[in-house]
Amino acid sequence: MKKTVLIFSLLVALAHGVFAQQKPKYIFFMIGDGMGLNQINLTEVFLAAQEDRNTVFPLIFSTFPHATFATSYSLSHGVTDSAAGGTALAVGKKTKNGVLAMDSTGTISYKSIAYGAKEAGMKVGITTSVSIDHATPASFYAKQPNRGRYYEIGLDLIASNFDFFAGSGFLSPDKNSEKKSAPSLFPKFKEAGYKLAYGLTEYQALKDKSEKIILMNVKGSDNEALKYAIDQQPEDLTLEQITESAIESLSKDNDKGFFLMVEGGKIDWAAHANDATTTIREMLDFNKAVKRAYEFYKQHPDETLIIVTADHETGGIAIGNGGSRLQTKLLANQRVSQGELSKRIADLRQSKKEVSWSEVKGLLDENTGLFSKIQVSQAEEDELMAIYQKSFVAHEEETAKSLYATDDKLASEAIKLLNKAGSISWASGNHSAAYIPIFAVGVGAEQFSHKMENTDIPKKLSTITGLQIEK
Amino acid sequence: MKKTVLIFSLLVALAHGVFAQQKPKYIFFMIGDGMGLNQINLTEVFLAAQEDRNTVFPLIFSTFPHATFATSYSLSHGVTDSAAGGTALAVGKKTKNGVLAMDSTGTISYKSIAYGAKEAGMKVGITTSVSIDHATPASFYAKQPNRGRYYEIGLDLIASNFDFFAGSGFLSPDKNSEKKSAPSLFPKFKEAGYKLAYGLTEYQALKDKSEKIILMNVKGSDNEALKYAIDQQPEDLTLEQITESAIESLSKDNDKGFFLMVEGGKIDWAAHANDATTTIREMLDFNKAVKRAYEFYKQHPDETLIIVTADHETGGIAIGNGGSRLQTKLLANQRVSQGELSKRIADLRQSKKEVSWSEVKGLLDENTGLFSKIQVSQAEEDELMAIYQKSFVAHEEETAKSLYATDDKLASEAIKLLNKAGSISWASGNHSAAYIPIFAVGVGAEQFSHKMENTDIPKKLSTITGLQIEK
Repeated sequence: MKKTVLIFSLLVALAHGVFAQQKPKYIFFMIGDGMGLNQINLTEVFLAAQEDRNTVFPLIFSTFPHATFATSYSLSHGVTDSAAGGTALAVGKKTKNGVLAMDSTGTISYKSIAYGAKEAGMKVGITTSVSIDHATPASFYAKQPNRGRYYEIGLDLIASNFDFFAGSGFLSPDKNSEKKSAPSLFPKFKEAGYKLAYGLTEYQALKDKSEKIILMNVKGSDNEALKYAIDQQPEDLTLEQITESAIESLSKDNDKGFFLMVEGGKIDWAAHANDATTTIREMLDFNKAVKRAYEFYKQHPDETLIIVTADHETGGIAIGNGGSRLQTKLLANQRVSQGELSKRIADLRQSKKEVSWSEVKGLLDENTGLFSKIQVSQAEEDELMAIYQKSFVAHEEETAKSLYATDDKLASEAIKLLNKAGSISWASGNHSAAYIPIFAVGVGAEQFSHKMENTDIPKKLSTITGLQIEK
Repeated sequence: MKKTVLIFSLLVALAHGVFAQQKPKYIFFMIGDGMGLNQINLTEVFLAAQEDRNTVFPLIFSTFPHATFATSYSLSHGVTDSAAGGTALAVGKKTKNGVLAMDSTGTISYKSIAYGAKEAGMKVGITTSVSIDHATPASFYAKQPNRGRYYEIGLDLIASNFDFFAGSGFLSPDKNSEKKSAPSLFPKFKEAGYKLAYGLTEYQALKDKSEKIILMNVKGSDNEALKYAIDQQPEDLTLEQITESAIESLSKDNDKGFFLMVEGGKIDWAAHANDATTTIREMLDFNKAVKRAYEFYKQHPDETLIIVTADHETGGIAIGNGGSRLQTKLLANQRVSQGELSKRIADLRQSKKEVSWSEVKGLLDENTGLFSKIQVSQAEEDELMAIYQKSFVAHEEETAKSLYATDDKLASEAIKLLNKAGSISWASGNHSAAYIPIFAVGVGAEQFSHKMENTDIPKKLSTITGLQIEK
């Protein structure tokens, strides 16, 4: 070997070694629950359509330098649920639908990348726009044979000793999985050293008083989830605020770095209800959270890795339902979620003895644009009227059930008509087997270059960071 | 600057320069028409399901080291057609639906990457499983304001002087776009130096007699397309044979390299008909063609680049239509395409005066597995029987039209039931706006690392190869 060639080879090897050794100190693992590729694409098309542009306005993560996709099937089912999907992302193992960070038999526990981060001395944050004990966040800190064991999941939270949790609250804080009364989780959280912050104002007041915080919705509001973005009022807690608070809390007086999981949990819920506009608004809400992470990345580009992915696609949504000209602009006429519309319909029904069809029609129009902005055929109006007759006149209950909501049938039918007019088609109210998207920026992001299994995501993360996960 | 640092920097720069200069000599540009991410995923799920495995058996291109995705919208429409989609891939410009390698007004011509390759002295092959003058292949060699100008597209073929063409044939070889008789294209092709090979046997006999070849279906068979893979007999020309012949022909006595476009054109057709099994079989057929390219790559790994992509998704297909257990295995019960099933139904209808429902039922069962292998509800059978009554008893014509076929309604209803049982949902019989997949292996493949516009694909190809395209 010639001398120059030798030097060259050595230096290339050295350079390679230097780069390979660089590890991210700050890791963002951001999960859009139910966020398939079509949900992203639709949001980008919709944004452009608002300005009458036949193009796309990219979401922040869709501009990341690395983007690919992965399978989502679970060990037991072609179509995963959020427990098996979350487990795949958290621990790198496929398991049975319904199981959290355990094997299919529910006997062997798996170690998640969040535990790996904690062991390595990093701070760990687990945050979501739904309840903290919901399947996706729970996959990172709990180990349970069944995702419905909310109380026990809460106990696992304490055992994790992770630093920051946020979400709407807890679903079963004082009743265990056998439906028996149990000592409330909240005092237990406090005993374990967590400050409980109900709302952003409380968080601001408490944030310097403890290194361990659980941030929740203000007392008296929903413990099941943050409000849908489309329904939020200025005082409501948002995923963006949660992300900002988590970054602040985890990076304070901390030279060991952090691992932060952020879940946009209600993309899935809106898609289960086949409510396209609410899905889009949730996507934009999640995008805002990602923007916060990206701002942090820009301040620490050589120390940060952001991964944006999903646990599965929900609804089998398609953009385009026959015509080549998309009418997604029409979706903007929807002012509230299907759930909120259901409430408003119920309120109107209860407001007086007789409610005319024209009043109901006015309510639907105001909240969806149907009739005044979107043409409704006579057959379609007849169908809506028939539902009105049943529920408003004959007072028979008429509801449409999706996984996370039981909506008024008038609401769901109106949203269905709006979606149809807006070029949207849904395959079902369940998840689909579609690939999940992966976007990455920062240290090690180039590892996400090819189609992979969902379980490869934490495996690659482990390789990049050196953090341990289940082998 | 210290001396060692200087040497190091110089060597790194040198190494970078060396790698940057390396250009692929052999370029495969393989396009699955209508091949969205779900079409790929479904095929992989289906293959595993045949062996009762709840996993995926990856297609060859899905294992490539680089995979990402791109937008597909055209300049005029949210949902592209194959002309604007093909143009985006061929020349790197968005144009109006229907236009081939020209601007939206049809006045300015664009230069495709295939022309860039020809100018650089490479050999060029344009091949497809549909007609050679169809929108996707034509985007690479023709420049026409309207994709329906088949005769003029044929004239553009001659002007291109490309080396190898293959497909089923030509749609309008002796009638121009004004529907007037015109001198046949075939003698013109010959005058221009092309040998016309009708079928593989003729190709074998002619391949050494000319450097310019047009390979078509054997005379007397369909000029519109190769047969669907699911309907093919051993003597039928296949896309795999075309690919193999193209590689052989283009690499013979050629030290300048080649550019070969291969289109799997009937994935789109099967998806337009919402015929999932036929779509899967077309995907597998396309995969066989990619395998041929991949074998070539393995022999020339440092000189070859393979890109596999699509012009758009067709049908808005979803995998999963409600249940979490996929039943894609059932799709294998389908023995023939919807089109061939239509023919068999028509043959039965014409075979005698009275055909009983039980005979028709038997035919459907034999070809789709309905009744014996797949449960059909009474309501579903009643619906099929009603169609039978109309078409077999009352002799009213009952057809279902999709873009490339007018099928018997009994056939399309049977396939619809099979698809439903097989966990498949379709949004429409048209294209959707879904992202298109990109897979790449070989020299420069790492350029395909992030979400992009479809027009970025030839632009990147141009950067990697140095071949010129429209600026």
